Amino acid sequence: MKAIIEQVKQNPPLVHHLTNYVTVNDCANIVLAAGGAPLMADDISEVEEIVAISNVLYINIGTPNERTVESMIVAGKKANALGLPVVLDPVGLGASQFRNKIVSRLLENVKFSVIKGNMSEIKALYVPGKNTGGVDVKEEDRIETANLSEAIEYAKKTATSLGVTLVITGAIDIVTDGIQVAIVRNGHAMMSNVTGTGCMTGSVIATFVGANPDVPIKASVAALVKMGLAGERAYQEVMDNSEGMSSYKRYLMDGVGLINGDQMEAGGVIEYL
Amino acid sequence: MKAIIEQVKQNPPLVHHLTNYVTVNDCANIVLAAGGAPLMADDISEVEEIVAISNVLYINIGTPNERTVESMIVAGKKANALGLPVVLDPVGLGASQFRNKIVSRLLENVKFSVIKGNMSEIKALYVPGKNTGGVDVKEEDRIETANLSEAIEYAKKTATSLGVTLVITGAIDIVTDGIQVAIVRNGHAMMSNVTGTGCMTGSVIATFVGANPDVPIKASVAALVKMGLAGERAYQEVMDNSEGMSSYKRYLMDGVGLINGDQMEAGGVIEYL
Amino acid sequence: MKAIIEQVKQNPPLVHHLTNYVTVNDCANIVLAAGGAPLMADDISEVEEIVAISNVLYINIGTPNERTVESMIVAGKKANALGLPVVLDPVGLGASQFRNKIVSRLLENVKFSVIKGNMSEIKALYVPGKNTGGVDVKEEDRIETANLSEAIEYAKKTATSLGVTLVITGAIDIVTDGIQVAIVRNGHAMMSNVTGTGCMTGSVIATFVGANPDVPIKASVAALVKMGLAGERAYQEVMDNSEGMSSYKRYLMDGVGLINGDQMEAGGVIEYL
Repeated sequence: MKAIIEQVKQNPPLVHHLTNYVTVNDCANIVLAAGGAPLMADDISEVEEIVAISNVLYINIGTPNERTVESMIVAGKKANALGLPVVLDPVGLGASQFRNKIVSRLLENVKFSVIKGNMSEIKALYVPGKNTGGVDVKEEDRIETANLSEAIEYAKKTATSLGVTLVITGAIDIVTDGIQVAIVRNGHAMMSNVTGTGCMTGSVIATFVGANPDVPIKASVAALVKMGLAGERAYQEVMDNSEGMSSYKRYLMDGVGLINGDQMEAGGVIEYL
Repeated sequence: MKAIIEQVKQNPPLVHHLTNYVTVNDCANIVLAAGGAPLMADDISEVEEIVAISNVLYINIGTPNERTVESMIVAGKKANALGLPVVLDPVGLGASQFRNKIVSRLLENVKFSVIKGNMSEIKALYVPGKNTGGVDVKEEDRIETANLSEAIEYAKKTATSLGVTLVITGAIDIVTDGIQVAIVRNGHAMMSNVTGTGCMTGSVIATFVGANPDVPIKASVAALVKMGLAGERAYQEVMDNSEGMSSYKRYLMDGVGLINGDQMEAGGVIEYL
Repeated sequence: MKAIIEQVKQNPPLVHHLTNYVTVNDCANIVLAAGGAPLMADDISEVEEIVAISNVLYINIGTPNERTVESMIVAGKKANALGLPVVLDPVGLGASQFRNKIVSRLLENVKFSVIKGNMSEIKALYVPGKNTGGVDVKEEDRIETANLSEAIEYAKKTATSLGVTLVITGAIDIVTDGIQVAIVRNGHAMMSNVTGTGCMTGSVIATFVGANPDVPIKASVAALVKMGLAGERAYQEVMDNSEGMSSYKRYLMDGVGLINGDQMEAGGVIEYL
């Protein structure tokens, strides 16, 4: 993972975000903490030019609307034309036909490098219309030791079918391109008490993939380890100080900047299958 | 209040927000801290489906525009059709004809369970066009001991006329459905030094009403006590540490998660008239 | 600078923002910390009425779109008609033809009191289409001791040509109306590790200019000193506590509220040329 981090340091990527208005500030700050530079622009008149000065495009459909969806497609096509990686976070996929259609159109028009979601979202990706539980993972879709092998098979099949690197987040994270599989067991349950940790993870993946476009699995794993370790460290801090979720968020975001490559190598709980 | 909190714990409500882009992140985090799950979606193509998977709808007109207003009406009607409670925060009502018309249209088309605002906004609700002081309460509209009886009468009359539970926030908060009246004297003046405490209060009310739809007065009172105690606790913390308003905000948001039902029973300064 | 601060205290300005959705919450909070009251409204149907109850208009093109650009022009014209100061932050100018056209239209239609940007943005203001480096300053455009005289000449020429008070931010800040020149050397490099410090600086300038419309240079200098000192203080705090950028941001925003006029007089590193 030190090589991934080193690349980010050597060539800090400009990360163009087309994302939701709920967590956009946290996404911008986490990109800075992770060593990149964020850039948000969503008008269809400028997204192609903005993509052209960027190193990677991150599309997040947290609060989509008719206007921004068109910008996402135009931006994605331009990134493809320029050979830039595109990362997709299909937030809340399955919660509405509108989101399902957006993702269908995106998949038809844009070639993604990485798609990241929780298992409910990823299932909706494969079987449109399945998920109806909002933006959080459904109880029966949580990845645990008991259903891990099954989840991995599902992930491999989906990654192959879509031709992408798939990142399924949960208590256990799965990263696969259909052939290689990596399992990451970092992070803390308290991360789900803060809004936007999923979006922030997407932004860090985009940052790392932006600087390491040829190794999306390794870049994604490094991003998951960095966020996961920051989440673990933050839990320790709030426990020590009897603090709440706003403090937790602060420690988490601090951690993304403070945890270095050596600590990631030492603390990352990764298994390559 | 412990029964209110217990209901939230037993059935964490999914709180659909149609809200402004200024404080939306804080609203999402405060819902999580209060025990619910936030969901933001504002495109007219999906709001009905999102309402259908939610437990309560929160409409906040902080930064309205032509597009989102239509979504608010459609979402509100759907919530009514499904029997879900709808909470309205008419932010800045009276500051423009645009906001006055939005609220008129909302009141014509949607049945609200709770409407929450400061006295300037509530007066504009009753007498459209009266308030012209921005989004904060006007000096002459502050609720104090001297004008409390008058304010209560005003609140009762307005609640009856609108057929809702009315929450008027201020140094002293008034909650009434026109018959029952509750007065809450928690909170701290420093809360107004942080943007969004009003919106966050609306989100907590929506969270509690979402899990307790049949007792909107009790649910609203519990929300005011929770926010108020968090504001008092935060003031103590910043004073102890010579800190500013960003720290105050952090302690406030921490407090909403940390203060439990027992502390609310012990610390709530509530009077039922 | 104490006179500037005193005016803000005596007549807290209502600061109407037409700004981006990335840093808007921070802008609102920093206005409160600086002693003003923020107000965000961007629908074309209401901006004129909102301007009419405000003391100053702040236009920031961080995430512009077709809809909000029209609102900016209408709001700017109304502010001019009412004699209110208008502050422009041309974020990312030069990064796209869309932004260049927006600023051209704004300059044609609205008379600005203050325009604030980094040197890359200001150069794009003078020679449209020049900057292509995103929203951050380009390496070759950084103001340092070596190129300071040149930068000042450039600033004076541009300020005169545009008929505004120009604020160019960087390690060394330049403020000029083409005749008078002030140099401010406060601040800390870590401020660029937090998203939105530029926007927040714009909001504080707007707050101070709103209460001191006749002395835009002095008001801008005071705003730069306040933000700069807060940035210096925050650096000391995070260093003392081994913290990251989220903590830095908290200390920075705390500082804007905590640093008073005396401390500004004592700590401000200002040179009038």
